[in-house]
Amino acid sequence: MRIGIVGVSGYGGSELLRLCFGHPAFEVVYVGGESSAGQTLSKRFPALAGRAGGDLAIQPFVPEQIRGVDLLFASLPTGKSREPLARVPDATKIVDVGGDHRFVEGWTYGLTELPGQRERIRNSTRIANPGCYPAAALLALVPLLREGLVEPEGIVIDAKSGVTGTGRGGASDFGYVETNEDLFAYGLEAHPHVREMELALAQVAGSKASVAFTPHIVPMARGILATCYARPKRATTAARLLEAAQSCYRDEPFIRVMPLERGRSPHTGWATGSNLAFLSYAVNAQTGLVVALGAIDNLGKGAAAQAVQNANLMTGQPETAGLAGLPLWP
Amino acid sequence: MRIGIVGVSGYGGSELLRLCFGHPAFEVVYVGGESSAGQTLSKRFPALAGRAGGDLAIQPFVPEQIRGVDLLFASLPTGKSREPLARVPDATKIVDVGGDHRFVEGWTYGLTELPGQRERIRNSTRIANPGCYPAAALLALVPLLREGLVEPEGIVIDAKSGVTGTGRGGASDFGYVETNEDLFAYGLEAHPHVREMELALAQVAGSKASVAFTPHIVPMARGILATCYARPKRATTAARLLEAAQSCYRDEPFIRVMPLERGRSPHTGWATGSNLAFLSYAVNAQTGLVVALGAIDNLGKGAAAQAVQNANLMTGQPETAGLAGLPLWP
Amino acid sequence: MRIGIVGVSGYGGSELLRLCFGHPAFEVVYVGGESSAGQTLSKRFPALAGRAGGDLAIQPFVPEQIRGVDLLFASLPTGKSREPLARVPDATKIVDVGGDHRFVEGWTYGLTELPGQRERIRNSTRIANPGCYPAAALLALVPLLREGLVEPEGIVIDAKSGVTGTGRGGASDFGYVETNEDLFAYGLEAHPHVREMELALAQVAGSKASVAFTPHIVPMARGILATCYARPKRATTAARLLEAAQSCYRDEPFIRVMPLERGRSPHTGWATGSNLAFLSYAVNAQTGLVVALGAIDNLGKGAAAQAVQNANLMTGQPETAGLAGLPLWP
Amino acid sequence: MRIGIVGVSGYGGSELLRLCFGHPAFEVVYVGGESSAGQTLSKRFPALAGRAGGDLAIQPFVPEQIRGVDLLFASLPTGKSREPLARVPDATKIVDVGGDHRFVEGWTYGLTELPGQRERIRNSTRIANPGCYPAAALLALVPLLREGLVEPEGIVIDAKSGVTGTGRGGASDFGYVETNEDLFAYGLEAHPHVREMELALAQVAGSKASVAFTPHIVPMARGILATCYARPKRATTAARLLEAAQSCYRDEPFIRVMPLERGRSPHTGWATGSNLAFLSYAVNAQTGLVVALGAIDNLGKGAAAQAVQNANLMTGQPETAGLAGLPLWP
Repeated sequence: MRIGIVGVSGYGGSELLRLCFGHPAFEVVYVGGESSAGQTLSKRFPALAGRAGGDLAIQPFVPEQIRGVDLLFASLPTGKSREPLARVPDATKIVDVGGDHRFVEGWTYGLTELPGQRERIRNSTRIANPGCYPAAALLALVPLLREGLVEPEGIVIDAKSGVTGTGRGGASDFGYVETNEDLFAYGLEAHPHVREMELALAQVAGSKASVAFTPHIVPMARGILATCYARPKRATTAARLLEAAQSCYRDEPFIRVMPLERGRSPHTGWATGSNLAFLSYAVNAQTGLVVALGAIDNLGKGAAAQAVQNANLMTGQPETAGLAGLPLWP
Repeated sequence: MRIGIVGVSGYGGSELLRLCFGHPAFEVVYVGGESSAGQTLSKRFPALAGRAGGDLAIQPFVPEQIRGVDLLFASLPTGKSREPLARVPDATKIVDVGGDHRFVEGWTYGLTELPGQRERIRNSTRIANPGCYPAAALLALVPLLREGLVEPEGIVIDAKSGVTGTGRGGASDFGYVETNEDLFAYGLEAHPHVREMELALAQVAGSKASVAFTPHIVPMARGILATCYARPKRATTAARLLEAAQSCYRDEPFIRVMPLERGRSPHTGWATGSNLAFLSYAVNAQTGLVVALGAIDNLGKGAAAQAVQNANLMTGQPETAGLAGLPLWP
Repeated sequence: MRIGIVGVSGYGGSELLRLCFGHPAFEVVYVGGESSAGQTLSKRFPALAGRAGGDLAIQPFVPEQIRGVDLLFASLPTGKSREPLARVPDATKIVDVGGDHRFVEGWTYGLTELPGQRERIRNSTRIANPGCYPAAALLALVPLLREGLVEPEGIVIDAKSGVTGTGRGGASDFGYVETNEDLFAYGLEAHPHVREMELALAQVAGSKASVAFTPHIVPMARGILATCYARPKRATTAARLLEAAQSCYRDEPFIRVMPLERGRSPHTGWATGSNLAFLSYAVNAQTGLVVALGAIDNLGKGAAAQAVQNANLMTGQPETAGLAGLPLWP
Repeated sequence: MRIGIVGVSGYGGSELLRLCFGHPAFEVVYVGGESSAGQTLSKRFPALAGRAGGDLAIQPFVPEQIRGVDLLFASLPTGKSREPLARVPDATKIVDVGGDHRFVEGWTYGLTELPGQRERIRNSTRIANPGCYPAAALLALVPLLREGLVEPEGIVIDAKSGVTGTGRGGASDFGYVETNEDLFAYGLEAHPHVREMELALAQVAGSKASVAFTPHIVPMARGILATCYARPKRATTAARLLEAAQSCYRDEPFIRVMPLERGRSPHTGWATGSNLAFLSYAVNAQTGLVVALGAIDNLGKGAAAQAVQNANLMTGQPETAGLAGLPLWP
């Protein structure tokens, strides 16, 4: 498969490049970027200095000029992909890792593990990859809504993300000195992932869903933990919730449903560099609220690795091709 | 004032020492510890090498032998202070920074800014300092309950703490390599701060309160952000919530009520090394839920600085004595 | 004393503000800045919201308009202070924390602990504060050169600095994601601190000095460790080196000469937020080389706290006024 | 190839496991550990929960019972491998990642890129993998000694390591709170890597070598930068040094010789998770000293990846098998 990557210098694009270089059937033949256009790949990725692929030149992205590319990964800033991606030749399949095509006509939502979604992805040529927060939260919540265990309205999603979630252009706001040993919530007035989560949840629940979403930036590079609180339809137990998740994801290669250990949730660090999602469940003793937790690598299941999983389905590769490596730890 | 500190080698004890050394009216005359007993202070605090106070020897804590100490700060592990503190001579006032005496007969709860609490503290000789998570969450929630703006039941408190919150003995579980670039939730089955928060909230609300509490460990040394979600009694606005908080804390020297800026909450890093609490409010557009946010230094307002504030009240000092310094940034 | 601070939004300027607010005799009456001009102080320093001083407006720096300021701290980017500081009225004393006036005619070099320097500073109205790297390295090396224990030529100074050393404008190069979990050497071709170190060392040694200087950026906010290697004039011992340092700094309030403990040097974290310098010495068994180590807070002894020490001397305050607080740990 | 790993729960052992799981020809059939004995692999590596290999039980290490293992990686604490490894059956090849067999009779030193070493490794059944500091420093220095460009005596090796270099048992000394935002030098009196470096350098130089070695612990998990200073035999240039390195490593798949860029050395973060070494060179203008810099991942080229490279040679695999993946960034 001849692969293109646009936005290769961003955090998501860099991870796409790493995954594609390690993929048995993918060959990166085109790389596009804006600020880095004109440089060779080895300039951005010193590991490639003097190695095959290192002298590939980063191109300014001109959609019409994409030729001989079987599949294009697009990792562009929000608001910047609608127009150019519409001009990519039909023969080139697209996975848009950015946010512009989620729940948009003509694009298939690319969270593979949603009920029925895998087949839709297999038959699509235009995939809107899920947002990083939705990937973590939806994977944790979907089994509960699917079985009608919790109310789809009034769900609290309190999510914590590493700094790569801000995108690479964010450096001026996220300098090391300003970001390390610090923590804050943002998006308290509005966040584009809210609509995506509500639409996906409503689809699974078969009725209106509403979420109170608060994202936070935590001083680490990668990782998202979504801590979700939902009202049970009737009193339930952690065992029942686990069972729902295990049943939902029984054959999924990238989902790990985990009982709590010493009352602790999965760690985001368990997923670094992988396409894995770790899910756990509890019932809060004081309030009866259901707590669903999802931990992922925001650049993995939350972006690039999920995108490769979709690309595998779209191109007839084994679904786990290029994604079977263990996470990097420590 | 002649001051004693027990548990001086822990994180809270170290911060108490720093604050007492900088206090215009406090003189540290006694330091007690367990693992560090027998060492001089300068061995634990190299800044004191060759300086006044540096050759003070850390004593094994024998309560009956405390003599000539006007006020004792106790920063002992949970479960370890009830018995020994009962044996401290009556003439010595006590601020227990640990968790064993909160809402216990004969001890006054030491969150100074609770309605009416300041006077009770002034007249007490035994103070149970608040827990770090409760300090952050209660300061944010109390104004709303006090004015009946939110329901006291079913409150979600999703809190994120720096690693000093685990206490110094926790190193084996919280090695640098295991903790950096990682994030997880814990205490999902039970946490001692739940009872403390429910009792304090109920007291303010005048009726039963219940909270779903999820603490998280974030890779930073200091800081807590409590993100709290409560159901409004009737539809409300962020402006109305801010007003309630401003009115509640009008003359408080350590509380900063802040409007959101670009949808962002206060940063924990704004409080480092200080007794400050930063509070913000939002109303979630999708669900109508009230979001109350409190950011503190868990070793400051969440432990040592709050303890000094209480000690000031108990000993007739100006309430801000030794606590007026600006936070350390960066 | 009426104090002005120019460059108040930078890292050094922020630390100056904190120290001046905590100083018993200093009142900040003027703050100047470039990118932050027009804002109030409380906008940059949320701790000041609603507090005395918080509504002071940051001014664009127009030297002629500085009036009624007894002493001005200037913390401007390299190359930006010569011209404007020449226009500051003579009645206003200046401590230039930037690099433009070191070893320049009419300016006194402000490393207080250099032999004879304290008196010169006391009698000066124009002080060039030392660079952060020179502060760490010179304090460690000077006692050895003063007693002729090492050769002044061919000294290796391998220094490691926290990221605040890059200055606040550096965010685009020093984003959290790019900087955390990373380490590199820079300035390998040239660095402005080399001349400063060579001149100061030559002055102490009474003959030409030369240094091979390699600075490194380490993923932490504050702190510098200078590891210096010098050839002994004749075979020596760690005890002899320690003795030289202890004798040199016997009455210095901010210098801590420390024997190695378990073969370990002082930690940079011992100095955070203070004006302290920790010095240690070893003789390398394999090569006979002398190893001199200096650990400081680059914003403390390496910038703002050193500047306040100089200001104290220039204005007749006790030398330790406002600088006696213990370091922040952890 | 049937592979065993002893010490699988340590940092080095964990990385070996990751690399072996990703290796096309290696199958992990035996895992041994001490503190983790009795657990299944999936308990230590949650990514393996429910996956092939996850239920492999970690065994207490009894050398005689190793059966059907073609090659054993041993990652045991210093001083703990001599005796047990002597009892491993001859039929099982060994790569000892620990420090007990370096420059010991009957063991081949496993720094593949040393002149002539590759062939020796190919023909050995007992390999002593290099230490992490020596890997970084030797790779940088060897080309210069090989061509007689620098003196082999009096070399200064100032090295900075991430915290995984301390080994996993070190947690009590290297808690997050104690280690983050801190930096120190250690081993100033003695370090086991000194002898290893001197012997390897002497071998290349053909005459006695001596080094002054100072390791430092830096607040990051992975990475080593060795900054080395050597006296040139005659005046030289950076270009000449680069040329020597390029010529020495022309066909090496894992070595990247890099000109300085804006006076900066390679970043340790360029190598994370890989077997790469980045080398750069400068000549110091003031002193004429040669500066040689080597950046590696201490768990990669400094431990596990180097061990896999050796295992590939010993078992007739392509040398880069399982090691071709790009580094993880960010």
